[in-house]
Amino acid sequence: MPTEDILRSLSVTTPSKIVLLVMDGLGGAPYNGRTELEAADIPCLNSLAADSEVGLADPVARGITPGSGPAHLALFGYDPLKYEIGRGVLEALGVGLTMTPRDVAARANFASLDKGHITDRRAGRIPSEVNRKLCAMMARAIPKVEDVEILLEPGREHRFTILFRGDGLDGRVEDADPQKEGRAPLAAKAAVPEAERTARIINEFIRRATEVLKDSHPANTCLVRGFAKYPAIPTMSDLFKLHPAAIATYPMYRGLAKLVGMKILDAGETIEDEFNALRREFANHDFFYVHIKKTDSYGEDGDFDHKVHIIEEVDKHLPALLALEPDVIVVTCDHSTPAVLKGHSWHPAPFLLWSKYCRPDGVARFTERECARGSLGRFPAREAMAQMLANALKMEKFGA
Amino acid sequence: MPTEDILRSLSVTTPSKIVLLVMDGLGGAPYNGRTELEAADIPCLNSLAADSEVGLADPVARGITPGSGPAHLALFGYDPLKYEIGRGVLEALGVGLTMTPRDVAARANFASLDKGHITDRRAGRIPSEVNRKLCAMMARAIPKVEDVEILLEPGREHRFTILFRGDGLDGRVEDADPQKEGRAPLAAKAAVPEAERTARIINEFIRRATEVLKDSHPANTCLVRGFAKYPAIPTMSDLFKLHPAAIATYPMYRGLAKLVGMKILDAGETIEDEFNALRREFANHDFFYVHIKKTDSYGEDGDFDHKVHIIEEVDKHLPALLALEPDVIVVTCDHSTPAVLKGHSWHPAPFLLWSKYCRPDGVARFTERECARGSLGRFPAREAMAQMLANALKMEKFGA
Repeated sequence: MPTEDILRSLSVTTPSKIVLLVMDGLGGAPYNGRTELEAADIPCLNSLAADSEVGLADPVARGITPGSGPAHLALFGYDPLKYEIGRGVLEALGVGLTMTPRDVAARANFASLDKGHITDRRAGRIPSEVNRKLCAMMARAIPKVEDVEILLEPGREHRFTILFRGDGLDGRVEDADPQKEGRAPLAAKAAVPEAERTARIINEFIRRATEVLKDSHPANTCLVRGFAKYPAIPTMSDLFKLHPAAIATYPMYRGLAKLVGMKILDAGETIEDEFNALRREFANHDFFYVHIKKTDSYGEDGDFDHKVHIIEEVDKHLPALLALEPDVIVVTCDHSTPAVLKGHSWHPAPFLLWSKYCRPDGVARFTERECARGSLGRFPAREAMAQMLANALKMEKFGA
Repeated sequence: MPTEDILRSLSVTTPSKIVLLVMDGLGGAPYNGRTELEAADIPCLNSLAADSEVGLADPVARGITPGSGPAHLALFGYDPLKYEIGRGVLEALGVGLTMTPRDVAARANFASLDKGHITDRRAGRIPSEVNRKLCAMMARAIPKVEDVEILLEPGREHRFTILFRGDGLDGRVEDADPQKEGRAPLAAKAAVPEAERTARIINEFIRRATEVLKDSHPANTCLVRGFAKYPAIPTMSDLFKLHPAAIATYPMYRGLAKLVGMKILDAGETIEDEFNALRREFANHDFFYVHIKKTDSYGEDGDFDHKVHIIEEVDKHLPALLALEPDVIVVTCDHSTPAVLKGHSWHPAPFLLWSKYCRPDGVARFTERECARGSLGRFPAREAMAQMLANALKMEKFGA
């Protein structure tokens, strides 16, 4: 029986409250001998660690560097190998589009077409305001293809996102993008027979879009890729009997939270706003996912010092969280983003779990190295949820 | 999706280099309170450990004592429960036979037959030179059975190895060996219908061999067992996009390496030769499996002190390895062979992984006890490959 089914059968609703504080990309790697966490001055997190159980969590599996989708799903208690969030869906969530289970999402580029060949896959990186104008033009001209609604969201420069909304759509369609310049545009192709109608609709959209754009050189056609259907995922209420809420300042994380049925709270813009939102809404939910983005952003930038500052800033807000007296607190990350690597990495996530019933393991610093000595040991991140629920006394006994 | 498929989909070829140093049977158990590793003076390994992540790897599963086949497959990144290397194949690899995917291998004994009964299963342990002569005689007389080629390789005393080479052979054949003296010889029997032709050919070989040997008492027949087809295993290039090479002084380990598609390098005879081979070939491959046999041999002999000496000898060569500046270094064993047990054991393998991007975990000695405190924790050996590839930056991100 997979973990998911066990949890579904054992979980119960109680008034106890869980706070999952995700500092995105928190885990680091040594730079001049110290990781970002080791360099940070974090008295509150260290003090919490001393009363907690700590360990290291592998987001997907040892050695695997995860994208944000699978890394978050795992923390939310889902098997990240079972539920796939396609590229187009993540993109749509990232730009804040609200998807429905009928939708197929895709990423698109404006491109330049000349005598039947793609001469520039990015249409000279047209200004974002031109992009907005062209998207509006297409939206007016192509509200539907057959009975499928077309929703367009302009992005930066040459990028935009498309939702195909209709019954019976299937995301298993290969990219309509020749990938290289100098080639003819490529038609979308169904990867399975069930997706043939979807491919036809996509191709018809591209044909009509190219007609609409014909006088808008260099943006006189579009390349569409990353087709993905909104995944069918059971909600956290269904699986864990929770009434969960998300506090996240970035659209993609709100989207991921929505995907698993969380209520999206108004998070404001700053870290302080997020902690204020937590206080304001604390009475209304029993599970709070609080997402801090900038640890990851600075990690991606290779900016060790600013990442350290963000960690320290979060540390300063920790007393506000503790003052709410949640029953369970977890502090961790979805994945590591070491500044030295300027990107997501395979390193396991430092993980701290506090509850009234935990067994403090004598580790009094919240760092990767110290977490390695903790009583939670090294475990797959998808096993975090059972441990949170258990410590919140939200699970019944298994077996007689 | 099993790990193997994830790795296949994520691995990429890069110039970075991985060295997997396998000290066969390295793991020990306490004798007068200290294991072999604890008794050894190994300043270089300890110093490397201080800069590394360490842990304990279970070759197959907790409590399982592995043979060399599954133990090595796991280290090479394969599920040892999925791919089986039959006894005959291991034997053939061990005597240096080159097998093809069409071959069924088997182990054989010369035996004594008297009035229809086996009177000595080992033919009085005839001298090896008599064995060689008899094998040559059989080889001349029975080059083929039907269209199946017969290849014979004499071993020590009464032992020899047979390869049956032909199309459509199947290794699922029960031993043609009554196991006890005083019984009639046993015909080979197909365990599945698909192996019936193979069983027939084996029995015809035994009939003709007994005819050839009829005047060679005590070696006037042969018992054949351990039938096994060369396994169908994807190569390391296929799975991990590596261009791997093996440095091993013993045929069986070269055979195991060949099985997974490694290039077999000229390893010489001594440990020093092996490190020289590594230096000489370092430019030509991106993955090196270096196998040290004698830690295991002395363990099997119950010779604690000589096992300690071999560990110390390897330690002295470590600077030569470091001087090559590989991107990832792993030092471990396929399985433990504690001198106190005089054989393979179930104990997990001490495991050390160094890379520029690892998180040194504060463990500064390379012993079983200290590895138990390391950040790699305890893990199945088949998960080692993903960690090596990750640290060599040879894997792309999983999911969006």
